[in-house]
Amino acid sequence: MSTQDRRAALRNRLTDAAEAQIATDGLASLRARDLAKVAGCSVGAIYTVFEDLQAIALAVNMRTFSTMGGEILAKVRTAETAPPAERMIAMAHAYLEYATRNPLRWKALFEVEMSRDSDIPPAYASALAQLFSLISGPLRELAPEADADRIEMLTRGLFSSIHGMVLLGVENRVSAVPRAQLPDAIAFIIRAGCDATSK
Amino acid sequence: MSTQDRRAALRNRLTDAAEAQIATDGLASLRARDLAKVAGCSVGAIYTVFEDLQAIALAVNMRTFSTMGGEILAKVRTAETAPPAERMIAMAHAYLEYATRNPLRWKALFEVEMSRDSDIPPAYASALAQLFSLISGPLRELAPEADADRIEMLTRGLFSSIHGMVLLGVENRVSAVPRAQLPDAIAFIIRAGCDATSK
Repeated sequence: MSTQDRRAALRNRLTDAAEAQIATDGLASLRARDLAKVAGCSVGAIYTVFEDLQAIALAVNMRTFSTMGGEILAKVRTAETAPPAERMIAMAHAYLEYATRNPLRWKALFEVEMSRDSDIPPAYASALAQLFSLISGPLRELAPEADADRIEMLTRGLFSSIHGMVLLGVENRVSAVPRAQLPDAIAFIIRAGCDATSK
Repeated sequence: MSTQDRRAALRNRLTDAAEAQIATDGLASLRARDLAKVAGCSVGAIYTVFEDLQAIALAVNMRTFSTMGGEILAKVRTAETAPPAERMIAMAHAYLEYATRNPLRWKALFEVEMSRDSDIPPAYASALAQLFSLISGPLRELAPEADADRIEMLTRGLFSSIHGMVLLGVENRVSAVPRAQLPDAIAFIIRAGCDATSK
């Protein structure tokens, strides 16, 4: 194996180890020592292929995003000919299902420090843009005359609303919509938002 | 001072210390040793007045809830004669403002482990019920024929939606509504939800 291949293989093993750790015990449980042990390398070797633990967490998040995005796209495709609101509901329900089945992996997406102002990896930005297009596309159909700024605000507002319902629900918070009613509550808010958009 | 007074005073000093610590560095930074030092007691003395660190965090959250609730109520009162949606918007904007000014204190409200199934302190449950009545009251006016279950679902759905927008916005997440547009996005979702409720 070339040095480059060995480095790629080590990155992969470390990402595998971190992915399993996050899925089992959450992002806060990541420790360099544990990852090195599972990946069969020294702690020092980690930092020859990753800048820090956050960079490994981001590599895991890229995988999560890609798996989740694939599941969501597949679900939306089955609703391709449905009205805009129903396509968006299919998307949101797939988001809820992914978060329900993979709560810690999903939560880690929102725990790695990455603000709008900081450097967002291009692959991450494009995965997010693809996810958001499943909201902004239907919204544009509903309000063809709305300008890009308004569509962007509505897209992010609706995504944040769905995210809030999924988050409190998955964490079973005292303020949450009970899990059994969550799909209906999500559908209600999306239909309401779509009706208001098309007015 | 009686033993009881001394215990109450120690509880207070520890809660003060924890409140300052949470406000500055967040819930995850709470350490028994640091609190003991600030409160002028031994680490062991902490556990004569609190069961564990989580119980101290909950005492801080009760204060936060009560301060936040007071601010929100004051704001809603100025909108007393406004239509239901506008009263709810006043409530949500006050929630956004509190979270913006006190991000770590506010975040701690959602970080202490307290699921629907576990024992929720009565004072906490009644503070939450009061906050939720600022949403369910207007909703009931809009849909007097709706049953209690539906009003409860809509109340929690709208609260979760507002919470999601505030959370991603305050944390400045890459998926958030930009801070300057947040009040408008919140108002949009609430008006949309109110219109759909009254239909």
